[in-house]
Amino acid sequence: MSTTDGSAPERTAHDTGEKGAASGRDAIVRAARRAFTLKPYAEVTMRGIAAAAGVSPSLIVKRFGSKEALFNTVADFGAAADALFAAPPPELGRHLVLTMVDLRDRFGGDPLLRVVFSLGIEDERTLLRSRFREQVTDRLAAALQGPDAALRAELIAGQLLGLGATLSLHRPDGAGAQAGAERLADLYAPGLQRLVDGA
Amino acid sequence: MSTTDGSAPERTAHDTGEKGAASGRDAIVRAARRAFTLKPYAEVTMRGIAAAAGVSPSLIVKRFGSKEALFNTVADFGAAADALFAAPPPELGRHLVLTMVDLRDRFGGDPLLRVVFSLGIEDERTLLRSRFREQVTDRLAAALQGPDAALRAELIAGQLLGLGATLSLHRPDGAGAQAGAERLADLYAPGLQRLVDGA
Repeated sequence: MSTTDGSAPERTAHDTGEKGAASGRDAIVRAARRAFTLKPYAEVTMRGIAAAAGVSPSLIVKRFGSKEALFNTVADFGAAADALFAAPPPELGRHLVLTMVDLRDRFGGDPLLRVVFSLGIEDERTLLRSRFREQVTDRLAAALQGPDAALRAELIAGQLLGLGATLSLHRPDGAGAQAGAERLADLYAPGLQRLVDGA
Repeated sequence: MSTTDGSAPERTAHDTGEKGAASGRDAIVRAARRAFTLKPYAEVTMRGIAAAAGVSPSLIVKRFGSKEALFNTVADFGAAADALFAAPPPELGRHLVLTMVDLRDRFGGDPLLRVVFSLGIEDERTLLRSRFREQVTDRLAAALQGPDAALRAELIAGQLLGLGATLSLHRPDGAGAQAGAERLADLYAPGLQRLVDGA
């Protein structure tokens, strides 16, 4: 399995500690995110995550507590949503594209796409989907004016997931990988903006 | 694991035989698609697919031949692309949305989305991704006029994957599930059409 997947280790406020501690935390979060995305919850072990992260199991317990607590930490889209939605509605379309590209670059993966990997799997990973709906779709719907806000928010979320999916799918040599963020925004933002405007 | 996943058993020309034979074939294709999407190629067995499909392993061998032949059958987006791209460029945006909704309804899943599930996994499933690029993105790029055709084709593919992802993610009670195909097209097709037009 490759580490160049779509599940980004986007950071949270907790990551601002000393560098060594932060990178250990990053490695644990990245390994946990991957394990919880690809395996049934019952098959994920702290020992396995520790091995993948190159740390001791006791360090994970010390820093995150239980397996459930670790799962709750990684099944969180709040930090990505904060960054993505930090623009007023008239500028949101372009901001969404530029921020998505920036988050993907900075964290070596996609901040949202892992929710798609969990589709069709009915176990604790459904929490990932309800978190996404709460933290991304519902939050966006509440910020939209005009009719069909819930539907438009779902479609905006779809375009964001689709942008990440197509960039991941066509790399490393695809046209999207070669294009700059501004060119991607020129092409992709108008459709998003139209959904934001609802007109 | 649920059967309500995003990996649709879209039909091919072979499915037009007698009803019993066709539904047996559908069950095998569905089980194979699911197995090859979720497990490493080496771990997929004809026996396992037979059990999931409720048929005998010998029936699968008789109808599909080897495991590799079965994999090649399910890693095919040609039939979906034929349906999706069957409109002239000026009408393509709306046609794409309506066809996507129709394919999802008819086949109980998404015709493209399984390629996203394979992201980040480096084994024979990479074939799924190169098939997608050939049969969807490259075919679409060849049909587009104007500058940046390859990039626009990737972004159109992204919007299609995103539409399927968001409809799957927010069902069964999401706004997209409640909306009719025409309303979805009203909202989602303009962004697609703009990418088709390239203007």
